[in-house]
Amino acid sequence: MKRITLLAVILLAAATSFAQQALWGGQAIVSPEIHDDNTVTFRLRAPKAVKVEVTGDFLPTQPTETPYGKFDMPGTAELKENKDGVWEYTTPAPLASELYSYTFMVDGQRINDPANVAMIRDVASVTNVFIIPGNPGDLYSVKDVPHGSVTRRWYDSPTLKEQRRITIYTPPGYEKDHQTYPVFYLLHGSGGDEEAWIALGRTAQIMDNLIARGKAKPMIIVMPNGHTQNAAAPGESSRSYLPAMGGGPRQAVASMEDSFGDILKFVESNYRVKKDKANRAVAGLSMGGMHSAAISAQYPNTFDYVGVFSAPPIATLMARDKDEAAKYTEEFLKKLQVQKKNGFKLYWIACGNTDFLYQSVIDSMKKMDEMGFKYTYRESGEGHIWKNWRIYLSEFAPMLFK
Amino acid sequence: MKRITLLAVILLAAATSFAQQALWGGQAIVSPEIHDDNTVTFRLRAPKAVKVEVTGDFLPTQPTETPYGKFDMPGTAELKENKDGVWEYTTPAPLASELYSYTFMVDGQRINDPANVAMIRDVASVTNVFIIPGNPGDLYSVKDVPHGSVTRRWYDSPTLKEQRRITIYTPPGYEKDHQTYPVFYLLHGSGGDEEAWIALGRTAQIMDNLIARGKAKPMIIVMPNGHTQNAAAPGESSRSYLPAMGGGPRQAVASMEDSFGDILKFVESNYRVKKDKANRAVAGLSMGGMHSAAISAQYPNTFDYVGVFSAPPIATLMARDKDEAAKYTEEFLKKLQVQKKNGFKLYWIACGNTDFLYQSVIDSMKKMDEMGFKYTYRESGEGHIWKNWRIYLSEFAPMLFK
Repeated sequence: MKRITLLAVILLAAATSFAQQALWGGQAIVSPEIHDDNTVTFRLRAPKAVKVEVTGDFLPTQPTETPYGKFDMPGTAELKENKDGVWEYTTPAPLASELYSYTFMVDGQRINDPANVAMIRDVASVTNVFIIPGNPGDLYSVKDVPHGSVTRRWYDSPTLKEQRRITIYTPPGYEKDHQTYPVFYLLHGSGGDEEAWIALGRTAQIMDNLIARGKAKPMIIVMPNGHTQNAAAPGESSRSYLPAMGGGPRQAVASMEDSFGDILKFVESNYRVKKDKANRAVAGLSMGGMHSAAISAQYPNTFDYVGVFSAPPIATLMARDKDEAAKYTEEFLKKLQVQKKNGFKLYWIACGNTDFLYQSVIDSMKKMDEMGFKYTYRESGEGHIWKNWRIYLSEFAPMLFK
Repeated sequence: MKRITLLAVILLAAATSFAQQALWGGQAIVSPEIHDDNTVTFRLRAPKAVKVEVTGDFLPTQPTETPYGKFDMPGTAELKENKDGVWEYTTPAPLASELYSYTFMVDGQRINDPANVAMIRDVASVTNVFIIPGNPGDLYSVKDVPHGSVTRRWYDSPTLKEQRRITIYTPPGYEKDHQTYPVFYLLHGSGGDEEAWIALGRTAQIMDNLIARGKAKPMIIVMPNGHTQNAAAPGESSRSYLPAMGGGPRQAVASMEDSFGDILKFVESNYRVKKDKANRAVAGLSMGGMHSAAISAQYPNTFDYVGVFSAPPIATLMARDKDEAAKYTEEFLKKLQVQKKNGFKLYWIACGNTDFLYQSVIDSMKKMDEMGFKYTYRESGEGHIWKNWRIYLSEFAPMLFK
């Protein structure tokens, strides 16, 4: 059999399997092409298209009308068609080091870049990503360093009366040594699930790299699903997936806070972990930040390290009216008094200065100031975005368990 | 804060994060809708589109011109636009139980279904999937049974001089008990990587369900990356990803067969496994089937169970000409003689009767017949597709370690 025939045979092996059809064609297109000066060219073959745009967080934001008002949204740039129906756009200036997401819009319809194998799923949306090297991009990249393991497994939640899926990072060497490790519980936001911190948060890459650089202690990172109405991420559960927003027919039998003890118990009876306050941390973003504040207050003397990213620790967002908010605040402040009295090593609040929750974070801190509750505040630029949450994780993890 | 405001705030939390934009809109659309009679309706909101089609393996195949000749490819069906710019197509007849893949084509451009959160990545392609319940669909679904764990970790390959990524399924209870387990090495095809059997092969679901039904013994399943030019799946390696087909600048320093000993050593020194021939199986699809035949011949007295799915055990596809093919065959037949003499419990060859490799499988078996090499042959319908490989796994696993 001649080489040319072999190639045909192998390509057919791909082509006749439906799901592999995308291996056909497009292979001559390089997209995105990251040039030496960190400008980037995007390309898409779309000979029938009338208009091709790219949108993503590498573009300046634009004020955009939404059903909820005018907000800064990622901008768009138009690609120009050249010969062979290939559309192209090159950024006018070099991009700063970062992990960027983008998608094409062909005549208004969103599509992924068929030339880019790097994709990250976020709930129902899969977007292409690319990393501009440097700092912090290198921290988010798979580097030639020892790698930890990432396991998807299931734990029993007697409180929620079901098995639930959970993602666990164990540091390099965990399987071989006999040490015990500290544990960091890392919680996602309302738009996420037990895959969010691994996929968009780049937790495994950040931790592998921080540990290799001697910047963070080896630790176990536990990433549960924070929506008690679901047992797992979309497609990973025996139940239908219920969107996080808007509710659904099944009401959770308990809250994330009330069922969190099941996770603690599972981790401490299944992993070689240090089981004291000095070796437990909890942090999360947005809804997960509110969870972290609430959990650390609800489980007294359990966590020495608390991280609240892009969320108010005193979370009155769910209150129906001012009275309910005032009542919640009063009760929560009592818990904070106990937490203050019990003591802790670090209570770290981080928020972007354009975050739509910014003012609520400031308001929370005012109340905490009034009661003499000691926290550390880290203010970054920009808003409620993964770029900030990756930065916060990269800064928070090195402060733990020292 | 009123409820309506809260909803706006939460939606904004999603919207202002670029990658979560897809959470906007479309929520009124149900697609695919699986009706009680197992007909299915697909829907897409695309008010600007001129033509919307759906293509997928639930449709009859159509003879299609390709650069490599005329082949049966998945057919397409046209959606019809109704009010509000929503396009719709309902299958004319019920679908048989199966896991199906599909994608939309909007004016010729391929897009995923924004209303369906169930998606599977296959190399560079992400397609939507849905499961019609029954047999075998239920076997591929996450059911309310004990679940095994799936770990992505890295092993050292001294032969390939690098760390390589590997996916490992451990059966329910593995972490808690003190038993030793048999090991099944499961290899992907030329279009796959260490994620393929988990994602498209539904290995975790099939094994969880088979074990729960008492049909298969609890076992560890090891899924390595079979392309020695890559260390990991796209985006998971510190090196650039080299397409499996067409080669690339880096030549692998050794073949999958020659470096397989590193995997055996890693597994047997890191997991509680039974370390004898009677408790080792190797199987794979297409290229992985050829790997399985070659590995079981190259490592004498190592495997009692061999599975060759949709591939000829005597693989002369890589030969440049007839002479090279004849020489390879002669050498391989010598190894098979040794394997025959050493003995084994099961050598299982499975192929679809429309597979483009069908004739090469028949030719291999003729040669094995001539030398009195005992195998079991399972012929299915259809060709070189994941539907068949899921069936083969579901049939092969129950025969192991009895």
